[in-house]
Order: sequence, then C-alpha cells, then structure tokens
Amino acid sequence: MKKLLPLLFSALCLPALANDVEPLPPPVELDKLVRDNVAALQERAMKDPRAYEIVAGLTTEVGPRLAGTAGDRAGVAWAMARLRELGFKNVRAESVEVPHWERGTLEAEIVAPFPQQLVAVSLGGSIGTPEEGITAPVVMVENLEALSAMKPADVRGRIVFINERMRRERDGSGYGPAVAKRSRGAVEAARLGAVGVVIRTVGTSNNRIAHTGGMRYQDDVRRIPAIAISNPDADLLERQVASGRDVSFRIRSTARYLPNEMSANVIGEIPGRGKKDEIVLLAAHLDSWDLATGAHDDAAGVGIVTAAARLIGDLRRAPERTIRVVLYANEEFGLSGARQYVKENADTLDRHVIAMEADFGAGRVWQFASRVAPERLPLIAAMQEMLAPLGIEWAGNAAYGGADIGPLRDLGVPVLQPGQDGTYYFDVHHNVNDTLDKIDRDDLNQNVAVYATLAYIAAMVDEDFGRLPASR
Amino acid sequence: MKKLLPLLFSALCLPALANDVEPLPPPVELDKLVRDNVAALQERAMKDPRAYEIVAGLTTEVGPRLAGTAGDRAGVAWAMARLRELGFKNVRAESVEVPHWERGTLEAEIVAPFPQQLVAVSLGGSIGTPEEGITAPVVMVENLEALSAMKPADVRGRIVFINERMRRERDGSGYGPAVAKRSRGAVEAARLGAVGVVIRTVGTSNNRIAHTGGMRYQDDVRRIPAIAISNPDADLLERQVASGRDVSFRIRSTARYLPNEMSANVIGEIPGRGKKDEIVLLAAHLDSWDLATGAHDDAAGVGIVTAAARLIGDLRRAPERTIRVVLYANEEFGLSGARQYVKENADTLDRHVIAMEADFGAGRVWQFASRVAPERLPLIAAMQEMLAPLGIEWAGNAAYGGADIGPLRDLGVPVLQPGQDGTYYFDVHHNVNDTLDKIDRDDLNQNVAVYATLAYIAAMVDEDFGRLPASR
Repeated sequence: MKKLLPLLFSALCLPALANDVEPLPPPVELDKLVRDNVAALQERAMKDPRAYEIVAGLTTEVGPRLAGTAGDRAGVAWAMARLRELGFKNVRAESVEVPHWERGTLEAEIVAPFPQQLVAVSLGGSIGTPEEGITAPVVMVENLEALSAMKPADVRGRIVFINERMRRERDGSGYGPAVAKRSRGAVEAARLGAVGVVIRTVGTSNNRIAHTGGMRYQDDVRRIPAIAISNPDADLLERQVASGRDVSFRIRSTARYLPNEMSANVIGEIPGRGKKDEIVLLAAHLDSWDLATGAHDDAAGVGIVTAAARLIGDLRRAPERTIRVVLYANEEFGLSGARQYVKENADTLDRHVIAMEADFGAGRVWQFASRVAPERLPLIAAMQEMLAPLGIEWAGNAAYGGADIGPLRDLGVPVLQPGQDGTYYFDVHHNVNDTLDKIDRDDLNQNVAVYATLAYIAAMVDEDFGRLPASR
Repeated sequence: MKKLLPLLFSALCLPALANDVEPLPPPVELDKLVRDNVAALQERAMKDPRAYEIVAGLTTEVGPRLAGTAGDRAGVAWAMARLRELGFKNVRAESVEVPHWERGTLEAEIVAPFPQQLVAVSLGGSIGTPEEGITAPVVMVENLEALSAMKPADVRGRIVFINERMRRERDGSGYGPAVAKRSRGAVEAARLGAVGVVIRTVGTSNNRIAHTGGMRYQDDVRRIPAIAISNPDADLLERQVASGRDVSFRIRSTARYLPNEMSANVIGEIPGRGKKDEIVLLAAHLDSWDLATGAHDDAAGVGIVTAAARLIGDLRRAPERTIRVVLYANEEFGLSGARQYVKENADTLDRHVIAMEADFGAGRVWQFASRVAPERLPLIAAMQEMLAPLGIEWAGNAAYGGADIGPLRDLGVPVLQPGQDGTYYFDVHHNVNDTLDKIDRDDLNQNVAVYATLAYIAAMVDEDFGRLPASR
C-alpha cells in the first residue's frame, strides 16, 4: 500500500538520501572531447534563454494545465509547436487517456463557537457535498496515526481535522510524512464514520493559501469530501478547538468528476549517431494543478530538460546515443502518461539506457544520486567529478528518480537524479503561488547545466549503466 | 483634493520624515518617580501577555470586522467586555453611523489573447457589474500620471490597467505614491471614458494575493468597477500586453452598497488624579477589512494602546492626567468614527493635551516624531531620551500622527508618533494574509513599551504640549 503512494500521488522527486552515503569508486576517465563539450555545455547553459522562455511561454500563453481540461490540451499543442520550432526531431504526441476532475466552488467555514470563513481548497479527486453542504462537529487529531487510534464513537458523524504541520527541509523530506494525510486522510476518517476531512495544508509557508494535490478513495470505504485549509486558517481552527468549546464546521463543495478525456505525452529527440537506437530519456511533465500556472511544477522541468537536450543538439557533433525528451501527460492525478509510455514503448524499453526527470522545481541543484548497476559506479564517479564544480555533492546510489520515470525504474532502467534545493519549493507547490515570478533564472540555468552534463556524458560513454532487477 | 486622501482613505500612519531633521533642544529633567516608573513600564511591557491576548482574541473570537457587518458589531461588544474585564473605567460606546459595503463575488479574467483567470479583489466601495459582467479591450498605463496624459480616444470603452508597482520601504513611504491609483484610478479612468479599472495590487509581496482598501467616486464622473490584481497576475497581464496582441479582459462583480448601519467608538479610561480632566488620548481602530482578521490592521494597535494604558493603570500611583483609550469605528472606509469623536467631544477638545495612534502594525518601533508647539520640544527631548535605549531615533516635529487622530490634529491638538518598522507591513496590509501568525510577540511588546513610556510621561509632566494652529 505504501508503495502506491509515490507512484500515484507524488509530484516529488527526492533523492534517497542516506546519512551514510557510500563513497564513489575512482572514476573512469572521460574522453577529452566529452570533457571539453561538458565545459562548453555548462558555460552555454548559464547564458541560454530557452529554459526561461519555455517557463514564461507555458505560464503566460497556456496557464493552468490540469489533466482533461482545455488548458491541458493547449499545453500539448504548445509543446508540440515549441519542440518543432526548436528543431527537435521525431516530434510526436502519444495519446493518453486521463481523468477529468473539476474543482467547482468551495465554501469552508467555522460555524461555532466563533463563526469565520476559511481559506480552503478541495483536494484533487474529492467528491463534492450535497447542495446545502455538510455541517458537523469537529474532532481534531494531530496526524494519521492519532486518527487511527481513535474510537469510532469519537469520530462518527464528525468532520475530522488533521492538524499535522509540514517541516521545511532542503531536500524536501518533510513532504513524505506530511502528504500521507492528504492521500489517505479521507479513507482513514471515513473508516471511523467521519462525514468529512479537513487537513492542514501540505505546505511550508504561512501565507493564507492552501495547497491541493491528489487524494484517493477506497472501494470498500464511504467517500467523504476532503479539503485543505491554509496554515493560518489551521492555526485559527486549532485555537477555536483549544478554547474548549464545541466547534462546528461547514463544507460546501461542487467538486465532481467528468468523463475521461484524451491528452498526450509529447516527445521530441536529438538523434544519436553510432548508437542512435539507444535512448537517454529526459522527463518532465506538461500538466499542472489548476490553481496556478505550474511554473515550478513543472514548467521548470519542461524548460530544464528541453533546454538541456537542445544545447546538446547544438554541439557540432551529435551525441552517440539519442536524447529523448518526454513531456508526460497527467503526472499530477494518476501518472497516466507514465504508465502509457511504458505500454506504448514496451518493445524498446531494453534500449532505454538511462532515465532522468526534472520535477522538483527550479531550485539550485545541490546533490546528485543515481540508481545504476554497482559495477558502473566508476561512470557515475566521472559524472560527479564534472558536477562538483557546480557545488553538487554525491548522495548515493539509491535514487528514487521521480514519479514519471518510476515505471521505467521499476522495470530495471537505471536512473540519475539531480537533487534541487527544495527549501522554498513547498511554499508554492500545488497552490496559487506557483507562478513565473518565483523562478530564478540563474538557478534554472544551473539546472540546465546539470541535466545537460549528465545527459551528454550518458549519451557519449561506451559503457551503459547496467540493468537493475525489476522491482515489481 | 490631495488633502483629502490621507483623511479619507489612508490606514497609514507615517512619520513625516525629513532628510534634515532638526536636532532636539536639551531635555527637561523628568522627576525621579517618572523615570523610575518608565523603567518599570518598559520592563513589564516586554513580559506582558495582554497585547498579544487582545490580538489573539479579536482575530480568533471576532475575525473580520468590516464596518456595518455583524463582525463589526461583534468587535464592539468584544472590546466593551474586554475593557471592562481589564478594569478600565468609564467604559462606553459612542454611536457612529457607518457605511455598509458588501464585496460579493468577483471574477476577473483575461479573455484574449491567452485566456486565464486571475486572482483579484474588488476595491472597497467599488460598484459591481451587470449580471453578465463587462468585457472590454485593455489599455495598460504605467501610473496615474501616464493615464492623465492619455487621449480619450485611446481609453474610451476600454478597461484601464494601471501597472505601477509599490516600493518596499522601512518607513512605509512607498504607500503614498502607490495608493493614489487605488483611490483615484476609477475617477481618472472614467473621466476618459473607460468602463473599468484594474490596478496592480498596492502591496509589496509576490504572493498571489491582492489587497483591497478604499476607493472613491466623484459625483460628476461615471462610476466604473475598480479591482486590484495580485503582483504575479499583474505580471501576467503585463506579459500578455507585451506580446503585442490585443488583450481583452472580463470583470464580473456583485459588489454593492447596503443601507448604513450603526457602529461605535469604544472608549475606556485610566482616570487621572490632579489633572484628571486633561486627556492623553491613545487611539487605534476596531474595524478591519473583510478579507482577513485584521491582525496587524489594527488588532495590533488595539492591543498596543490597551496594554500600554493598562500597564500605566497598574502602577501604584495613578497618573496625573487621564489616559483615554479610544478604539475607533470604521477607520478603513471613511473615518466615520474619527469624525464622530470630535463632534461628540467638542466641549472637551481643549482638554485633549496630546493624542497618539497605533495603526501601522506591530513592527518594532524605530523612530519617533512629534507635532507639538516648538517651545515644548525640551519635553519631547526628555521622551526621546527615554526611548533611545529601545533603539529609537528622533524623526522630527512634523508628525502626521495617524488617520483617526487626524481631525484632532487638524484642530490643533498636539500629536506624538512612534514609527513602526513597516518593511513587511505591506505584505499583509488589507489582504487575506493579515492574520495572527504574522504578529511577533516581542515586537508587539516593544510597541507597548514605547506607547506606555510616551503616554505616561505625557500624563505626568507639569507642562502640556502647547497648541498648534488649526490646519483646516
């Protein structure tokens, strides 16, 4: 069950940081051509306008791109046109069926003891309420574990408020513990008879902004509405509960599912030479949540991998292996694109030499992890040597990789994982604040330099990265 | 005309900072009793929980307090009860008639060239739109001056977008220039034939949050809807305009006026001894905008002046003059309470020895200004001497004082003005973010120490502060 969480609901791409990271073995020596070109790529990346232009374009000309919406389709069309303009080869859209959930309107208010309207958002996938809303007494719990320990008699007929606060961490490691209540809160609360669930936002800022993100139901448990309230609103609700008086809450929501729609993974390539059938896959996702323009999540990733591939394609001599950029459909709400990709490309999965994903915003990369066959670590050591001047630390060979390349990783495809600085990522992640002004051009371009470095070396070295045992 | 702005529409309480502040004359010597008690007040203020409790109470138990609403009336009742509980004397509510404007709902969207919904708020007092909304081409101008220079042919039938960005300044001096477009934008745009006005938020954060605040119409100019959009949304609109394509905008709003309501100025006193008919007036305002709980604006001020007066009342020996706390009604939307106070207390205005107001949040006080008869500046020098250890600089004898004590000041009543650090004030001012979590207890209590120091000295010294020529 735990296994499903990152696959189905995580936008997060966390290095699996161990406190005791194995040191790397001595590096292989890279050809002079490769080293020279890496230096050129890194220098050019820092001045290249294209990653930022892509983020600006997607956020300005397309905007929100929730799966199934008109914005989603506009995003696909925009990306197809853009990859073609940029001179990518074999540009194509692979169809993906996606769910279509509509947020509708939401009212959330404390009815008693001290009536106040709250800033709240429906969690992605939540059902709505009856027309008149639901009003019920509140029971506050610290976290999911505390909820599980409750007696049904104390929960039945109530709205459960899960008050757990997310920790701010550079590596984003506060997300995992905090997001469980978003994903599973409704099921756990309904199991005990609750009529609704309200969670403290899975976000690190004290802005009066609540973050959305996927939640799920379970067939054998009654579906109840699930919403998040901002940190200041959670503080307010907590204070009203702390007053010792009975607290009553009202939720009215018109959220609903509409019929599935078609979307697409958008693909473009920088064709290789000698090993052109072997693929170095660079992943990001085109869709976004509906509340904002998805600048960090994941227009940034789209800009980073596209610009990195383009810079490699601009070199005088084409790479040996093919660089394939895959801009996935519907990462946010079920990973439809990721699953479709492995189906659609089942024949050639064994030629996917390595995969890497950019889906943790545009913070400066400060660490680097991999998941490759142990005997290939000297190759990773050579990569790390080229990244070190960019201020990047080695983080071990147990990388998660990312959500969209998860199905590839689970089939044994090796992955590389640059780790962005996520200190401020969860201030904007999945909320209205995820807009272009939060993107720092220099940090974005440092990402381009890192992805270009790794993809280029991976496309040029004689060896591959081995194969790992399939994990599922 | 310019004169009216601070009176009618400013929540701001800015020291009139000159670059060339006249140095103070040598101070009078304060009695040992006064000096000892000031030291005690300052020490106790830093540990006193009451200012914070008041801010927490008003924001938790009352919430938004826009004039004319149920929250406004709840605020009056709450304050009456609280002043009585705290042992204030002569606690009373002086009735004030206030306007009642209702925000209703607002939709604001770019219709073309790239459709996107924006985060926007109606400006306080704006009319709504017809049921179907208004849709019109956008004309973007940098500021009010640029708008005034436009030809009617370029504005007629359009929605004017005033794009001016507010500067972040420690003394809040970015507010004056930025707020003009909020107050006068609708009139200036309508004069040239515009059908609506959209302003870049008068706020300093890049949160996707827009700030409200009073705007006004003029009888001889057509009324048009006036809204503010957040900084990121203004950036987006600016980029779409910069694309060179025609930009079309839609506004739909149900804002409206309801019949006037009754509210009240809430008053409580620490009675004096020898000069008990002479009044040292401490002002703050009870009302807030509707978007948030008004923690900085102005529950903080209510907490500061109430706790400062209470600390003085807790001294073993009562002050010579009476300390009067006035918690004004409807500062935000027309200063009804301030005008009513001078009417209601016309008989005793000559016994108002000095007035001071707290209405610029709870940032640490870093400067001190006054507006007293020049021959009384040695007394101000003695005050400044007691404030210096708190890290406070002298800022001159041309203080503005504040909006609520403006009518008193204009009648010649001297004023004192502590200047709060406003660096972050306009991140939360008049927007949804003005909540309790933004209040720093230590900074709040430093304010209490400052206000207690000044009020106590003013209540104890033999001299008064002279009288200034009435300015209107």
